[in-house]
Amino acid sequence: MTTITITAFEKSPDRGRGLARDMRIRWALEEVGQTYNVRLVSFAALKEPGHLALHPFGQIPTFEQGDLALFETGAIVLHIADHYQGLMPPDPNARACAISWIFAALNTVEPPILELANTRLLEADQPWTAQRLPLLEAHIRQRLEQVSVRLGDADWLEHTFSAGDLMMISVLIRLNSSGLLDEFPNIAAYVARGEARPAYQRAFAAQLAVFLANEQGG
Amino acid sequence: MTTITITAFEKSPDRGRGLARDMRIRWALEEVGQTYNVRLVSFAALKEPGHLALHPFGQIPTFEQGDLALFETGAIVLHIADHYQGLMPPDPNARACAISWIFAALNTVEPPILELANTRLLEADQPWTAQRLPLLEAHIRQRLEQVSVRLGDADWLEHTFSAGDLMMISVLIRLNSSGLLDEFPNIAAYVARGEARPAYQRAFAAQLAVFLANEQGG
Repeated sequence: MTTITITAFEKSPDRGRGLARDMRIRWALEEVGQTYNVRLVSFAALKEPGHLALHPFGQIPTFEQGDLALFETGAIVLHIADHYQGLMPPDPNARACAISWIFAALNTVEPPILELANTRLLEADQPWTAQRLPLLEAHIRQRLEQVSVRLGDADWLEHTFSAGDLMMISVLIRLNSSGLLDEFPNIAAYVARGEARPAYQRAFAAQLAVFLANEQGG
Repeated sequence: MTTITITAFEKSPDRGRGLARDMRIRWALEEVGQTYNVRLVSFAALKEPGHLALHPFGQIPTFEQGDLALFETGAIVLHIADHYQGLMPPDPNARACAISWIFAALNTVEPPILELANTRLLEADQPWTAQRLPLLEAHIRQRLEQVSVRLGDADWLEHTFSAGDLMMISVLIRLNSSGLLDEFPNIAAYVARGEARPAYQRAFAAQLAVFLANEQGG
């Protein structure tokens, strides 16, 4: 097989907490049992022509394998799930449902979570932020309520673990320190089930090792 | 072939301007030459169990064909592109790139556009909104600049028109009345090329007819 190479931050702003998007690709590759190389990219290099040729929006991760070069985490996870066994149910209709959940995680559940995170990061010192935060949290809570109702007491969103669960859990993990998941015990348990998977653990350790090596190196 | 049924708003809040997400599905189905039925859903019915069973987040559109039921516009467009000819290049690597653009449209370009639209809609009367709007517009402008650089003087993002263009143009159309596209002539021309496609025109006319019939009827 041709070598897989992904990109990740040289110094991840999340300090190795597994929130950078390379974590989602690492987790997917671990689930399907594929080894991969990682090319670390500095913040400055993200905006250089070499990286922009791979990723038009100057972000990580990217995915390269032979002639193929992909960007966007959702597209990369879907590509991995379509090419290796372990992240897609074999039935075509069940596969299509798993893809619905990938898009739901990225387009319906993550946007209000990112809006809250960005507000805290970029508008923390603005006079209006204290008043806006409850509005943003209410929007997140609405989405969590809907995920909670659909999940019920099932282990995964559609019978067996799929790329849809991988993406939904990756999105929900952003809320681990917010207290919001405590209001939805079945979601908190669902996230914990994802984090307990050996593939998740291996991926988490690998991205943390990058951060720690960089800290020590200076 | 089994009949395709999609859902759309009974009374679209965009008043038939083609911004509701059923437009993206209609356009995709027109591009691949598939007829479809439309089931109109009232705002009240979006939150009823029957619709929530189809769409856990109580939104439109949905897609039903025989035993298959899908939600999330991105997943539905991808499904259509994978099952009928006309929206995907035949080469597997080119197909994977088209999928990168679907995700880029929905996850990287659309979020700041929606944030601006939602701010204007939901926070119009808040004292902070006048100060936040330029920040939100700057974020959109950054994304437009990146799309503009990648597009260059090409007609489409990857050689031939694909589902990636369909989704990117559908997202950019939201900016038609904002004036922002005037700053990027190659993007304005790209959007106009999409809107000029006969399939787009048929889809637009179909969704406008729903709005006009509803206006006259009630």
